[in-house]
Amino acid sequence: MAKQMHPPSEKRSIPVGVVGASGYSGAELVRLLIQHPWVDLRCVTSRGHVGEPLAEVFPRLRGIGAADELVFSSPDVSAMVASGIEAVFLALPHGLAAEFALPFLEAGVRVIDLSADFRLDDAALYEEFYGASHPAPRLLEEAVYGCPEIHRDGLAGARIIAAPGCYPTSILLPLVPLLRESLLELDSICTFSMSGVSGAGKKGNIPFLFAECNESVRAYSVPRHRHLSEIEQELGKAAGEAVVISFTPHLIPVTAGIVTTTYAMPKPGACERVGPVLEQAYEKAPFVRLLGSDCPPDSKNVVGTNFIDISWSQDPRTGRLVVMSAEDNLGKGAASQAIQGFNIAFGISETEGILRV
Amino acid sequence: MAKQMHPPSEKRSIPVGVVGASGYSGAELVRLLIQHPWVDLRCVTSRGHVGEPLAEVFPRLRGIGAADELVFSSPDVSAMVASGIEAVFLALPHGLAAEFALPFLEAGVRVIDLSADFRLDDAALYEEFYGASHPAPRLLEEAVYGCPEIHRDGLAGARIIAAPGCYPTSILLPLVPLLRESLLELDSICTFSMSGVSGAGKKGNIPFLFAECNESVRAYSVPRHRHLSEIEQELGKAAGEAVVISFTPHLIPVTAGIVTTTYAMPKPGACERVGPVLEQAYEKAPFVRLLGSDCPPDSKNVVGTNFIDISWSQDPRTGRLVVMSAEDNLGKGAASQAIQGFNIAFGISETEGILRV
Amino acid sequence: MAKQMHPPSEKRSIPVGVVGASGYSGAELVRLLIQHPWVDLRCVTSRGHVGEPLAEVFPRLRGIGAADELVFSSPDVSAMVASGIEAVFLALPHGLAAEFALPFLEAGVRVIDLSADFRLDDAALYEEFYGASHPAPRLLEEAVYGCPEIHRDGLAGARIIAAPGCYPTSILLPLVPLLRESLLELDSICTFSMSGVSGAGKKGNIPFLFAECNESVRAYSVPRHRHLSEIEQELGKAAGEAVVISFTPHLIPVTAGIVTTTYAMPKPGACERVGPVLEQAYEKAPFVRLLGSDCPPDSKNVVGTNFIDISWSQDPRTGRLVVMSAEDNLGKGAASQAIQGFNIAFGISETEGILRV
Amino acid sequence: MAKQMHPPSEKRSIPVGVVGASGYSGAELVRLLIQHPWVDLRCVTSRGHVGEPLAEVFPRLRGIGAADELVFSSPDVSAMVASGIEAVFLALPHGLAAEFALPFLEAGVRVIDLSADFRLDDAALYEEFYGASHPAPRLLEEAVYGCPEIHRDGLAGARIIAAPGCYPTSILLPLVPLLRESLLELDSICTFSMSGVSGAGKKGNIPFLFAECNESVRAYSVPRHRHLSEIEQELGKAAGEAVVISFTPHLIPVTAGIVTTTYAMPKPGACERVGPVLEQAYEKAPFVRLLGSDCPPDSKNVVGTNFIDISWSQDPRTGRLVVMSAEDNLGKGAASQAIQGFNIAFGISETEGILRV
Repeated sequence: MAKQMHPPSEKRSIPVGVVGASGYSGAELVRLLIQHPWVDLRCVTSRGHVGEPLAEVFPRLRGIGAADELVFSSPDVSAMVASGIEAVFLALPHGLAAEFALPFLEAGVRVIDLSADFRLDDAALYEEFYGASHPAPRLLEEAVYGCPEIHRDGLAGARIIAAPGCYPTSILLPLVPLLRESLLELDSICTFSMSGVSGAGKKGNIPFLFAECNESVRAYSVPRHRHLSEIEQELGKAAGEAVVISFTPHLIPVTAGIVTTTYAMPKPGACERVGPVLEQAYEKAPFVRLLGSDCPPDSKNVVGTNFIDISWSQDPRTGRLVVMSAEDNLGKGAASQAIQGFNIAFGISETEGILRV
Repeated sequence: MAKQMHPPSEKRSIPVGVVGASGYSGAELVRLLIQHPWVDLRCVTSRGHVGEPLAEVFPRLRGIGAADELVFSSPDVSAMVASGIEAVFLALPHGLAAEFALPFLEAGVRVIDLSADFRLDDAALYEEFYGASHPAPRLLEEAVYGCPEIHRDGLAGARIIAAPGCYPTSILLPLVPLLRESLLELDSICTFSMSGVSGAGKKGNIPFLFAECNESVRAYSVPRHRHLSEIEQELGKAAGEAVVISFTPHLIPVTAGIVTTTYAMPKPGACERVGPVLEQAYEKAPFVRLLGSDCPPDSKNVVGTNFIDISWSQDPRTGRLVVMSAEDNLGKGAASQAIQGFNIAFGISETEGILRV
Repeated sequence: MAKQMHPPSEKRSIPVGVVGASGYSGAELVRLLIQHPWVDLRCVTSRGHVGEPLAEVFPRLRGIGAADELVFSSPDVSAMVASGIEAVFLALPHGLAAEFALPFLEAGVRVIDLSADFRLDDAALYEEFYGASHPAPRLLEEAVYGCPEIHRDGLAGARIIAAPGCYPTSILLPLVPLLRESLLELDSICTFSMSGVSGAGKKGNIPFLFAECNESVRAYSVPRHRHLSEIEQELGKAAGEAVVISFTPHLIPVTAGIVTTTYAMPKPGACERVGPVLEQAYEKAPFVRLLGSDCPPDSKNVVGTNFIDISWSQDPRTGRLVVMSAEDNLGKGAASQAIQGFNIAFGISETEGILRV
Repeated sequence: MAKQMHPPSEKRSIPVGVVGASGYSGAELVRLLIQHPWVDLRCVTSRGHVGEPLAEVFPRLRGIGAADELVFSSPDVSAMVASGIEAVFLALPHGLAAEFALPFLEAGVRVIDLSADFRLDDAALYEEFYGASHPAPRLLEEAVYGCPEIHRDGLAGARIIAAPGCYPTSILLPLVPLLRESLLELDSICTFSMSGVSGAGKKGNIPFLFAECNESVRAYSVPRHRHLSEIEQELGKAAGEAVVISFTPHLIPVTAGIVTTTYAMPKPGACERVGPVLEQAYEKAPFVRLLGSDCPPDSKNVVGTNFIDISWSQDPRTGRLVVMSAEDNLGKGAASQAIQGFNIAFGISETEGILRV
């Protein structure tokens, strides 16, 4: 019986807020939080929509729980704290997120940040990849990289969760277990990702107009996308030594979804261990679906969910391993993974509110 | 507090089955039923997938409730009855559905049919529009046209529910209250609809290939689509006299979603009553969202849900009323509306399992 | 032998310019003009791209004729006149176009304007629909509404051509011959159009982002779209009396293409004349393709071309006629129709440079 | 003056035919051939459309040249030969193409084959990758692999041209010049491609329905796609030794277009030679557009054309070279490249009929 389990009825709802709720990740957070059985979404902010009812800005949400009562406010930390929230999700541009995190933490509100601000352990690396000095470097040590399948232990009770980036999640989850078991030649990792256009954010930029993206495929940010910083940080932790990889993202005409294909050379004799190592690593991970070998995942099976689907193939001609994954860039790659981390941090069942298709 | 209400805990799960579960409507039924808190989905059938695990045919559903245990069986009524189901959803072509309905009913299993077989009161009308004599005419009288917003009373305890067609739902819900109040000139109704390609079914037909439908818009079934039969039947009931309308469906490159725009001439003085009449009619309808006047609905706000969004405008230049609606052709236009009818028939809260976005 | 006919070899190339060449209509003009056998495209302007090579802004055009040599300049009328152009295409917002038209005309450069500025005969009607007084009312009388199938005679030698709007073209071409022959009840015309997103222009507006338009259908500008002004003007001329119609445009997720479906009540006995009247009207029109009755046109057959495809059906149930058309909103609805008018104005074969698929 | 050059007027039209003209590649051939200034398309065949006018099966082509006169016939070699054709394009499944090629050649008709049947030099390799013995192995030696940028010399006067596959063209054109100059470590080549759905052909297969492919991305044919055979054959010729590569194709929701991204390790000191070598190799190639470094090509700029756009980047972090290309899978990847080969074989200017956007 796999029906969603609900916490005991004495369990209270946790009051939360979302800052930056009008972007794509923010809206996805709101969609999930208003349907989360143990969350009480009290405030949603958006500088551009102050005073507008949530259900007018997002007509899709009308008629669902708190959606009919919430009104966008300005991102006023004091007012949000006064509303009694115990956690805040920040769906803001990098740089800005850290500025908000500090006062919330000081007020005792836990922070789940969807930006890049707390993902890197090293402020210098942040500066190298994001082109600005880190706004709150002393918080970096405390922040937990919020990929529950990798850092589950750190998440329980965490005060600052850095929800991982979309590309990183799709690359890390298939590779981390393999690197932990030293199955791959570290200098052989070549990744290639395709992302839906929502990943570019909800901004009025001409390159992301329908008429520009439709019937179009293109690589971008070649050869050094910012997400490489957190990808290589986490791969390095798994491998126990520095890892440098090739990574090329491509923009494809879907609204949401990321598919990543990675080539890597297994160490001698390691190839047959790939399946078993992944199976063992994710035996108890409700959101990692191992499709078995030679069964390429399809983004349409994960969009709108918190699942990541993984498959792999061995190529006897080249000796290389091919690892493939599919996730929703706004789901497991952003909002629902952030809620997964929140659930764990607050001692709720990991799957609450996000085990749905 | 609009959170989804659950029935009291002593409530049992209702065992059900789905016949024809591999098509688009069938798959949507399965997706919703495995997540329905008061349903126990016991059997799914598909002639083409006998013996295959549900989660292999629909990888999207892996990891969700019964999806990991169900295996497609052949549509064997006796075996399904023996499994203890109390209701069966038929997602079959017209003609075939009626053949299955009879033995299920005889065995005491209630039938929710998604085909056209039980939507018409008159077997002769069926023959006129579907080109074959009705396979079970004596059941027509008992069957309830399963649009809860129109025939709620008939649904409680119903043994045969005819889930409405996708186009009819989108046309009827905005118009029926207006006709009941005699607001429109009956011979003035001109409707245009646009539907996603899933409406054409999951069959290997070249005109519905991606490369044929993408970047393509076209009318079809001009001037007499089969759905006119049930549309005019229900409009006629609302008006108290026969109604004949113009209707042109168009195929557009979206997977799901129907948007309908209707012109009609209000009777003298009736125009200002349109809004109030709709508001009163749907005051307690959780799935009808009235957006107000001059606020055209967008299919992306309803796809994947059981909502229908409705707006209207008055055109002082022509005197005509413009009524617009948006729904998911597989949702409110098929599967989730069928479950809404099932909920009512079984005395469960109407919104169980389908009030979600 | 229907191969493209070339003018005699002594024919010179006509030097032309395009103002506002970076928008969607402007870019389509440039694409066609650089491949037009009797055009010498000398200057392309765009305020936002001054100094940038055409082939960098539009990489698609690289390697084709003048595309490799042209560089965007600022819209400086004197400089353009000095370059020796004999005609200028204006692909500018309404209001701005008229400001440019005047000095070009004074300098002896003929103007083909793709905006709404010269489409209406009546400056008061312009002000009513466009919300501003007309910037050059005295030019309205001279300007020719550049739909060659309707106003061919006026185009020969014309100094100011007002290229028709996209929706108007799709509505007028099927209806004008029927109104000229008094086949339709004038108060019965109800039109419904669906347009690709390029119709919204190349501006950084959030509602036209890929992630907003994809998997979305919606009506807009209900009930009074600006194009009604020119539609009704031209319908009225054809009918010999004022015509008021219902018109609802819808945005659908294709890059280009418009499909229009129109209902109208034929006058008694007129229905059987519809086909013959259309056939006679367009017997010699190389860009109007009559598909016959009951053969709905598909936008994918006309996108990228100057063709408009037309079909019609009679509905014996309602008595209404259903007329359907498909065109490219950037082609027959804008750029290629503008070139068609230019060809005629300059005495070139109407089909030069635009009879292609 | 870059206008398309026409051969001297005494030049005659070459009579040709297309076998298998109803599939996607066949239809694209027909579209281009009816507009080709020096081609007389005399016969088009399709088993499924015998007797149907071309313009009914492909309404897009109506009104263009021979499209209004051609009628589909059955693929009868004798009748086609009797019609006087000098060349035939075969757009047939592999295996079947070779069966047609023989009698045409014996009758003196030159063959341009778009299938895989004549692309491989070695019948054993064909059998290994295509799972059947080669139907006409003795023709393999004579056949020319029809990529003009690689085998221009062999094409002049060729009797059998094997038009290259879509993926191979996209991979070979960026790499062949680099391998000829020994710039790359041969065992380091990792390619990833994304293709539009038309590449799957015009067959009624459920996985290629709109509702299956839309909002979907997936890898397929992992790890050994059939096209690897010709890719590695041609890379090996360029390198002067055997080359084995990794290649993963992905299906993305566009109708047409292929984008390929390749990683390879340059030999020491070779990286700075990449740009100059490509520029020299393609200096006189009218259809290869080098975009320069760090300028990822976009499929929308090449779809509908015979262009292939190429860019490259060096990644100083990994030392790898990233090479990117974009082409139309039905254009440079199939039909227009076949015509390019035909042009050269018949002594016409290479660009006739296909230098268009």
